[in-house]
Amino acid sequence: MKVLNTVGQRVPMHDAATKVTGQAQFTDDLALPGMLYGKLVRSTIPHGRIVSIDVSRAKALPGVKGVITGKDIPDRVYGIVPKAKDEHALARDKVHYIGDAVAAVVAVDKEIAEEAARLVHVEYEPIPAVFDPLDAIKEGAPLIHDNLKTNISASIHKEFGDVEKGFAASDYVFEDTFFSQAVNHAPIEPHAALAAYDLQNGDLTIWSCTQIPYFLKRNLATTLLVPENKIRVIKPKVGGGFGQKIDMYAKDFCACWFAKELGRPVKFLYEREEVFQSTRQRHPMYLTVKTGVNKAGKILAQKITAYADGGAYNSTAPLMITLSCFFIMIPYRIENLIYEGYHVYTNKPVGGAMRGHGIPQARFAIERQIDLIAKRIGVDAAEMRVINAIRAGMPHPAGFIINTCGFADSVTEAAKAIGWKEKRGKLPFGRGVGLAGASFPSGVANMAHLASGAVVQLSREGRVSILSGAADIGQGAETVICQIVAEQIGVPMEDVHITAADTGTCPLDAGTFGSGVTVRAGNAALLAANDVRDQLFSFVADRLKCKPDDLMTANRRIWVKGNPDAGMSLSDALFEYQYSNRPLPIVGRGGWIPPAEQPTSLLTKNGNFSPNYSFMTQAAEVEVDLELGKVKVVKMVTVHDCGQPINPMLVEGQLEGSIMGGMGQALYEDSTCIEGQQYNPSFLDYGFPTVMEMPEMGALHIDTDDPVGPFGAKEAGEGTQLAPAPAIVNAIADAIGVEFNRLPVTPQVVLEALKKNADKS
Amino acid sequence: MKVLNTVGQRVPMHDAATKVTGQAQFTDDLALPGMLYGKLVRSTIPHGRIVSIDVSRAKALPGVKGVITGKDIPDRVYGIVPKAKDEHALARDKVHYIGDAVAAVVAVDKEIAEEAARLVHVEYEPIPAVFDPLDAIKEGAPLIHDNLKTNISASIHKEFGDVEKGFAASDYVFEDTFFSQAVNHAPIEPHAALAAYDLQNGDLTIWSCTQIPYFLKRNLATTLLVPENKIRVIKPKVGGGFGQKIDMYAKDFCACWFAKELGRPVKFLYEREEVFQSTRQRHPMYLTVKTGVNKAGKILAQKITAYADGGAYNSTAPLMITLSCFFIMIPYRIENLIYEGYHVYTNKPVGGAMRGHGIPQARFAIERQIDLIAKRIGVDAAEMRVINAIRAGMPHPAGFIINTCGFADSVTEAAKAIGWKEKRGKLPFGRGVGLAGASFPSGVANMAHLASGAVVQLSREGRVSILSGAADIGQGAETVICQIVAEQIGVPMEDVHITAADTGTCPLDAGTFGSGVTVRAGNAALLAANDVRDQLFSFVADRLKCKPDDLMTANRRIWVKGNPDAGMSLSDALFEYQYSNRPLPIVGRGGWIPPAEQPTSLLTKNGNFSPNYSFMTQAAEVEVDLELGKVKVVKMVTVHDCGQPINPMLVEGQLEGSIMGGMGQALYEDSTCIEGQQYNPSFLDYGFPTVMEMPEMGALHIDTDDPVGPFGAKEAGEGTQLAPAPAIVNAIADAIGVEFNRLPVTPQVVLEALKKNADKS
Repeated sequence: MKVLNTVGQRVPMHDAATKVTGQAQFTDDLALPGMLYGKLVRSTIPHGRIVSIDVSRAKALPGVKGVITGKDIPDRVYGIVPKAKDEHALARDKVHYIGDAVAAVVAVDKEIAEEAARLVHVEYEPIPAVFDPLDAIKEGAPLIHDNLKTNISASIHKEFGDVEKGFAASDYVFEDTFFSQAVNHAPIEPHAALAAYDLQNGDLTIWSCTQIPYFLKRNLATTLLVPENKIRVIKPKVGGGFGQKIDMYAKDFCACWFAKELGRPVKFLYEREEVFQSTRQRHPMYLTVKTGVNKAGKILAQKITAYADGGAYNSTAPLMITLSCFFIMIPYRIENLIYEGYHVYTNKPVGGAMRGHGIPQARFAIERQIDLIAKRIGVDAAEMRVINAIRAGMPHPAGFIINTCGFADSVTEAAKAIGWKEKRGKLPFGRGVGLAGASFPSGVANMAHLASGAVVQLSREGRVSILSGAADIGQGAETVICQIVAEQIGVPMEDVHITAADTGTCPLDAGTFGSGVTVRAGNAALLAANDVRDQLFSFVADRLKCKPDDLMTANRRIWVKGNPDAGMSLSDALFEYQYSNRPLPIVGRGGWIPPAEQPTSLLTKNGNFSPNYSFMTQAAEVEVDLELGKVKVVKMVTVHDCGQPINPMLVEGQLEGSIMGGMGQALYEDSTCIEGQQYNPSFLDYGFPTVMEMPEMGALHIDTDDPVGPFGAKEAGEGTQLAPAPAIVNAIADAIGVEFNRLPVTPQVVLEALKKNADKS
Repeated sequence: MKVLNTVGQRVPMHDAATKVTGQAQFTDDLALPGMLYGKLVRSTIPHGRIVSIDVSRAKALPGVKGVITGKDIPDRVYGIVPKAKDEHALARDKVHYIGDAVAAVVAVDKEIAEEAARLVHVEYEPIPAVFDPLDAIKEGAPLIHDNLKTNISASIHKEFGDVEKGFAASDYVFEDTFFSQAVNHAPIEPHAALAAYDLQNGDLTIWSCTQIPYFLKRNLATTLLVPENKIRVIKPKVGGGFGQKIDMYAKDFCACWFAKELGRPVKFLYEREEVFQSTRQRHPMYLTVKTGVNKAGKILAQKITAYADGGAYNSTAPLMITLSCFFIMIPYRIENLIYEGYHVYTNKPVGGAMRGHGIPQARFAIERQIDLIAKRIGVDAAEMRVINAIRAGMPHPAGFIINTCGFADSVTEAAKAIGWKEKRGKLPFGRGVGLAGASFPSGVANMAHLASGAVVQLSREGRVSILSGAADIGQGAETVICQIVAEQIGVPMEDVHITAADTGTCPLDAGTFGSGVTVRAGNAALLAANDVRDQLFSFVADRLKCKPDDLMTANRRIWVKGNPDAGMSLSDALFEYQYSNRPLPIVGRGGWIPPAEQPTSLLTKNGNFSPNYSFMTQAAEVEVDLELGKVKVVKMVTVHDCGQPINPMLVEGQLEGSIMGGMGQALYEDSTCIEGQQYNPSFLDYGFPTVMEMPEMGALHIDTDDPVGPFGAKEAGEGTQLAPAPAIVNAIADAIGVEFNRLPVTPQVVLEALKKNADKS
């Protein structure tokens, strides 16, 4: 690993102390003079027409300042993908799920707003509802969106090579079906928005816990009918996003709408129940995987069919189903492949981007099936992964350019670290090991119009101030950007400060999704820092009578390469600059877009999907309590090729969070929805794993040095979320001989399976 | 006047609506999680040694989080002029005036903080005090600052030509003595500071109503013993400064100190009484003016002696007395001149910068004496001003470079506008007209190390974002800067947004003092906007197949000069730029220092004091209520050479405020201090004029086009404050034949004089 002065170091997050001391300001910590409080009225039925809404009692309540319904606002829909926008801030004619917003109120305090929301009376005409995608695609199923003739709102069909020929050439062909459940992001910070409107200039300012300020700005502009340059989105501290804060929500629209109408600041804060019910969740997905292999375990053809339960709206639908498809194509090299994926509406909470975004479900199916096949044909499951591994420089069916790839090594190392040879199939009943592999892009390369920019200023007393559009949602993006800039300007971290994710003052950035921040915004910051260095060096070179290219900088000092004594302190250089009558402030600008030749445009064409790709294998050891059915993850090892980590400690934080997320997916979490009604929308009832459940964790790094990422970095945010769940379920199979193809594997499920097996024998 | 698309237009202040609707955030509107409240304990005696301070009862009060005295903090003094720093945040050994801060407390709420402050017991050993500068300079007067052997803490002696020869050549020599009283700035916003400390990085952030964020930063660094680059000063909205918010105060130091010690945000807010007593006021000043003239009224020699009552500390002392001296030298050309000025300590509230800064007192004396002399020698007072007027291009004794000068014309036009010919000496008893002239610099040219910088970004949707160090304190600096940038980029004001006066994100700026903001920060913004335009034009020129220099921009459109059809909209240009794979954000940088050949360095040497100079004459018509003694200003006309106004409406706002200020100085205000105790420290008791007292006002503009100011602009902030008071008192003399040489001319004073005259006759 590259360990420089700041880059490659285990630097604590720059805002850690303000967070742990409670000084950091999240959206709900903000208050403005004269602020009003909003509350949404939500549908109590899963599917129906709105017959009438009586707001008279709510409006009459003293302290209420405004009540609106879907009829009071422009008939404009929003969403992530332009052609798939389908959601009104407030439902117009129909409600599509329990939790759909139908009206909004604002009042002088929270309590009055809540009371007013209760006083809004909505009369519905119920319509038959449908709750499963496999039902929803049946002929005669209730149509959820009137403008479509089907409940399939997005689909993808991709074919490479000749699958039938591949199956024909195979020694074995297997077909298995898998199901991955609804999982909620459950960020610790509930969703909030605060908006203020300037009557004079028509300027709207919104503080919102968003992962993509620029997307929110755009969606607000098109739904509020306000020009985009009149909207300023500021992201305060965000307490976790995991994809759930990519979307715009009713809170954002309504805060802005009322602020504009009333000329007073307005805040909306979701209850935890609303976060579960009315934001986003991971798409439940059915996958059927048909795979042909030769005797050695080499995959010769694969056909995948996927049905994703999208719930009531599209959100990212076309993107999600595309990602699910494209990332079937790594980390294994499969020349003959068909993927058919469908995003299906149901009358349920809405699916959206969530860490891994459509891929964890697919990865669960693929990695589970590899274990199943390996067992069936008598090949070692780890070995089978190595045999099929894609390698750097290999041509890729979809045109991905794999410059660096540590995948095969990661399998071998993970197996070694978990004790594969000694343990796999050899531990006492109830104990087992398993592994799974994955790969992930470092953002997408097809959004040239959403380049990342950075502006870096170096003040006369040596303070470095960065403006970046990147949205830190708790993962440490700001810290990584500061490290890169500190390294290039040659100052310690404490000299570097960042203002980010404020569309009013920061340059454009594509936002925090798809794990592209480090590569994209990191490169932009690197270039801006280099621009600062160039300006500084051109002045210092005059003083030191050398060429700018001969200069080096580190530790607040600048010197001539190879001659450390011929130098000056940064402080002296800035002082001399100050008194040299050069009034120009030192300001660097940088911008970066992936060096792509118009690759996967519209997200469906082939091409180099991402600037680069990370690879990883995770191996788990589990212990099954045979009496209680409870699975304990004893140990989890991650072997990771994320290029050169800018901050190994933050990478570990991502790994640990991924393991927690994977354990949740595998064993604990299930956002239970019966007849459209959620039954566990609270932290207590939902029951994600806590620190008490965390296993012993180990992390190993496969050293690759990517030519595109800043300092050789690749993504480390989402890839590691993909493999833990199949690794755990693979380990359970090793422990108790039961093959689970449906998530989550709860104690009840385990006990039932054990009982069934006992009955059989 | 230059009227372009935005420059020269009557553009409303960009933040007017947020202020009038109460949405704008002043320092006291801000709150942070866990915030504590501070309160200062102040001296109750004017002069004495601190024997002991008992903080035990305060510390024991539940809710109190900290109590400090002068012994708990570093022994470091602060002030505006480096060599004249003399003030501790909390007095160490001695108190120097009633109101000196001796201890500070912080608590969980305001009420507990106030109670704790009352519980701090200070034992003093009183020392004889002195309250008048003429007493304080006497042999044997109590010494106020132990380290000096005198109470004279700053002085200046300037001599030009041969004064004795000038007097000898004069037909008449007159000597008169004048006194100008203590006047308070009385800003509507009381002083406040809020500080937060980041335990992790050692970063201090302070929100303070300061006119000079960079000076505050520097003074905090040297007194807190914290590196300057660890301090970020943010100026929220400021509700008036007038010079009173140039200084650092105990609130700033103590908020930072406690925030750092306790790791929690801390706010201090001064009561109105503290604003009057413990911030700054206009220096009371005694002036003796000896003037030699020929029969025609031409001034051949002048000798001025001034004693300024500085109160307990220096604040700006050397600067103030220097300004008072240097600006005796315009608007009249006086070849033989001596100025002797003294800044004298007394045990009273502290004198500091206030609109005009040492010059209104001097101008009062000079402009009054011109009227006295004109009367005595039988010359028309207006004519005498024209005879002595300095003119553009004239050599100046101190080396000022007067590129443009509308002074003589301003006298003639003001006389015409007030009806001088018909009214002067001709109105019924009790009614009269008077006029007075003045000049002011557009900032100082000797602070090259405090250049102004600006950074301007043009976003992809056409939003222009400016970063400027300039501190808008209500005068409209931000609006003027936005207008300049809007003009150069060719967009309407509504597209332009500014973030200013935040040392963490904005480039350096010298601050708001000396009326230099428009010229200095305006030029910086102009250059940054031109840099943006260059970047944009270089792209557009490619598209339009022309040279960048051939392009024009206005109204969100760019076209080839002389061929309006060959162009494109800004929006199209930015869209094409966005999709042209040019990732660099459009960011312009600008910086400006006055083009001075090291002129009045250390503020005492001769040279070109300022980038340019404005000139003005104000004429008043008054009516004296002969029964009540009350003087009503019936009309006030300003004839103004401020170059090309960027915003005529804001210039008028300054004029109107100046008239109010001048009326206050002439007739109403007197910060009454008896034995060191202030007697009228409230808006009610202090009694400045209100909108009810405002006269009919007229403004005329003398058209000059300055080569240095942006778009030809010169200052318009302080110059017009200088002449109203003498113009009013000159008009009173015309009205009732009484010559008042001491301010203010209250009803009581008028009645006494009328009675005396009646007794005489």
